[in-house]
Amino acid sequence: MQRRGRIELRPIGWVESPLTDRALAPRQGDEGAPEAWLAFDEAVADGLRDLVPGNEVIVLTWLDRADRDVLRVHPRDDPSVPQQGVFSTRSADRPNPIGLHRVEIASIEGRRFRVRNLEALDGTPIVDVKPVLSRRRRSR
Amino acid sequence: MQRRGRIELRPIGWVESPLTDRALAPRQGDEGAPEAWLAFDEAVADGLRDLVPGNEVIVLTWLDRADRDVLRVHPRDDPSVPQQGVFSTRSADRPNPIGLHRVEIASIEGRRFRVRNLEALDGTPIVDVKPVLSRRRRSR
Repeated sequence: MQRRGRIELRPIGWVESPLTDRALAPRQGDEGAPEAWLAFDEAVADGLRDLVPGNEVIVLTWLDRADRDVLRVHPRDDPSVPQQGVFSTRSADRPNPIGLHRVEIASIEGRRFRVRNLEALDGTPIVDVKPVLSRRRRSR
Repeated sequence: MQRRGRIELRPIGWVESPLTDRALAPRQGDEGAPEAWLAFDEAVADGLRDLVPGNEVIVLTWLDRADRDVLRVHPRDDPSVPQQGVFSTRSADRPNPIGLHRVEIASIEGRRFRVRNLEALDGTPIVDVKPVLSRRRRSR
């Protein structure tokens, strides 16, 4: 079993959003997130070419303002709710703060994709984009 | 916009599976994947404590045998299908090969979780676990 070697993520782009303050950001994308842009790096342009407006995709981000030492949280930051282990919550604070965001591509201008319902903060690194899989139609 | 700083993932555990050969592994977890175990590191035990058998979770892995330089693939490795950009496929080969696996926890023995429908290879690093969110019930 391989247990060595550094695992380094390389951003493929960055989020552009009016959201800049974590305390004010919605907790999930369908809780009032504004429109935002995914601005991709030129180096990955060839990987983007089959995405079109209307596609629903899962955007993976690196939540760079999260606290990686947290293992227990009050769900939804509500101190009246008992603490839970982070792996049964969607807390941004966790050992590897990877964000999963299901969004719809509203429009595309070159390597800039406008999306709906993205709650990530401005400047958040994007690390991957995957299609939403349905049970009917799957592509590897 | 922050564009500097290394992003390093720290494994929180490893997959134990009879699958060892990428060429023979199913492409999606519901295409005949065997039962497998998630073996978590002691350091993250406190984050696991509210997970119970029957929970459906999303396991995030680092697909350490993937090729990070690939931007176009034939979907499902079928050369008769035209190449697509990797971000409209679920190819393991992509700039940041993070695997998303929706699995059900079958049983728990300490920090070892038995799961169904996990197509990851033996020894694959686990980097995160998140609950499946439904529209009805959400926890941050």
